[in-house]
Amino acid sequence: MPFAPLQNDCFLRACQRLSTPHTPIWLMRQAGRYLPEYRATRARAGSFMGLATNTDYATEVTLQPLERYPLDAAILFSDILTVPDAMGLGLSFALGEGPRFATPVRDEAAVNALAVPDMDKLRYVFDAVTSIRKALNGRVPLIGFSGSPWTLACYMVEGAGSDDYRLVKSMLYGRPDLMHRMLQVNADAVATYLNAQIEAGAQAVMIFDSWGGVLADGAFQQFSLAYTAQVLSKLKREHDGVVIPRIVFTKGGGLWLQQMGQLDCEVLGLDWTVNLGQARQLVGGHKALQGNLDPNVLFAPAPQIEAEAVRVLDAFGQPHTGSGTGPSQIFNLGHGISQHTPPESVEVLVNAVHSHSRRLRAGPST
Amino acid sequence: MPFAPLQNDCFLRACQRLSTPHTPIWLMRQAGRYLPEYRATRARAGSFMGLATNTDYATEVTLQPLERYPLDAAILFSDILTVPDAMGLGLSFALGEGPRFATPVRDEAAVNALAVPDMDKLRYVFDAVTSIRKALNGRVPLIGFSGSPWTLACYMVEGAGSDDYRLVKSMLYGRPDLMHRMLQVNADAVATYLNAQIEAGAQAVMIFDSWGGVLADGAFQQFSLAYTAQVLSKLKREHDGVVIPRIVFTKGGGLWLQQMGQLDCEVLGLDWTVNLGQARQLVGGHKALQGNLDPNVLFAPAPQIEAEAVRVLDAFGQPHTGSGTGPSQIFNLGHGISQHTPPESVEVLVNAVHSHSRRLRAGPST
Repeated sequence: MPFAPLQNDCFLRACQRLSTPHTPIWLMRQAGRYLPEYRATRARAGSFMGLATNTDYATEVTLQPLERYPLDAAILFSDILTVPDAMGLGLSFALGEGPRFATPVRDEAAVNALAVPDMDKLRYVFDAVTSIRKALNGRVPLIGFSGSPWTLACYMVEGAGSDDYRLVKSMLYGRPDLMHRMLQVNADAVATYLNAQIEAGAQAVMIFDSWGGVLADGAFQQFSLAYTAQVLSKLKREHDGVVIPRIVFTKGGGLWLQQMGQLDCEVLGLDWTVNLGQARQLVGGHKALQGNLDPNVLFAPAPQIEAEAVRVLDAFGQPHTGSGTGPSQIFNLGHGISQHTPPESVEVLVNAVHSHSRRLRAGPST
Repeated sequence: MPFAPLQNDCFLRACQRLSTPHTPIWLMRQAGRYLPEYRATRARAGSFMGLATNTDYATEVTLQPLERYPLDAAILFSDILTVPDAMGLGLSFALGEGPRFATPVRDEAAVNALAVPDMDKLRYVFDAVTSIRKALNGRVPLIGFSGSPWTLACYMVEGAGSDDYRLVKSMLYGRPDLMHRMLQVNADAVATYLNAQIEAGAQAVMIFDSWGGVLADGAFQQFSLAYTAQVLSKLKREHDGVVIPRIVFTKGGGLWLQQMGQLDCEVLGLDWTVNLGQARQLVGGHKALQGNLDPNVLFAPAPQIEAEAVRVLDAFGQPHTGSGTGPSQIFNLGHGISQHTPPESVEVLVNAVHSHSRRLRAGPST
């Protein structure tokens, strides 16, 4: 059964650098704890994984922010760490804490035991994708995602978040052979996983290299970028005759924009440390840029939120309005939205982005 | 009473871009918990502040790493947060945790109550500087330091470390007037504090902008860089007829190197995300560069430590060997040394830096 036709294609057009009437906006982690209705659903689900693995709950929370705000895309409600969980590492989320693996990968035997997981173990994700796509009924496109091979490796070795990445970097510097072996398994697994999301109905996919920015220059290219490139080379470019744009976001990767500009993907995600105008020049004309408001702006009063949204749009500069391809921005935060964000701030932001970006397209007032 | 004449002036010469027989090396947090003798002294002192405020203890631990390794500089044992502590915010360090302020600065009344502290409250720091300088007896120069105005503000508002800087950025975006008021007090206090360290015997000073890198492009320039520049403009250039080099280190500041290259200081510190060769080009010829090995390299076996040290030296490229000024590196880590570092790794590193940098100066083998 085919899905309903798309009503708002701004996001997908912007990914392909086609002109749009306004700058599309969606927010990383837009279905999340800052919304009281999300907290209510999560309470019913009992746990984060209870929420993510239940098709109905995952569908419900994915659509919640769209009921409140005129966002231009939905993103699958899931976690970046589902793949290593399916490898048998035992993912859990203690309340108020980050993710944790019961069985971290810290020695040669553990690395050698790693393999691309049976995708049946991730069936709950693909089922959620299809269910959400149906529930969206063509309102906006649905984005699928995964952690990058390196970011998965960080959590797999550390077993949890870290502030110094000592364990994973000890392996990287001390046993680079093991690290490469793990990253190869991760790259194969992530590619298979994202292709299955595409087959299930994802209309774009995003690779979150959340921890690429903690690497040293040189190590980033070798241990993160090279494996992200491998994943990209294995992804489907089209599904059912429609292009599937691919977004790569390396948090803290601003120093490597020129090299990331060589990646075979349609969109680069940027955090707030990057100047969007400079990024346009460094990346070159072949990619759309996604970002990059500091999520903490959403704690300010409405006039400051509006001013900062305008600043980000103006930093990118004039979007193109003609036929063919040209400079193209997708508005987003530079990182996931904070759980402490007042929900009304998001409304201010979305409206400011839509209205100022329409003004920009109307050209300078005379 | 004048201090003893300096025997090893490599570090001070490198700061001024004068030629040196080898690349000088020192390590951020080189007097610290990875050394068993430090842990023994700290146990006797009872607490971190007990250690930092006692002249004899502070002198003892500052000299400990010099007894083990042929480092080219000493750095005052103290903390970046002594200034806000002297403002009355009540600094403490719980065992195994980071710093904490009893009275964080979170509203207009608290900001208005801030003032440059009486330097008598920081007498213990200046006494330690003089005592260490005497104990060094001219072996290597002594570096004094402070947190940057912005980094102090982060801790003053958050009250402790943070992973999202939500409170301080809420003030920055919501009440920029308050943030500027606080930063002005901090800049005045830091300049006064560093000048007093110079008068007490510090032969170079370093401003740690540890959290500059968490700011958005635009905000960094306005709320961090501008106040660091103010501090620099107020610092003594010489003391007793000798030049006092000034080092600025913004962790995560690699994207703003061109602008930092305009600062009125002698040295820029860099973290490991930066390519030293590119940094040389971006910063221009008027500053020495300090950095930038990933501290986690020190968890690898000796051959990998040596290889990574060589990689960092080679990335910077050929240092100059002639008369006058020219390209000049000071080797360091890109951040403080980890408490978990094996002490023998530091010996491997220091020897590798000294020997490879001597080879580099001898020119390419034919």
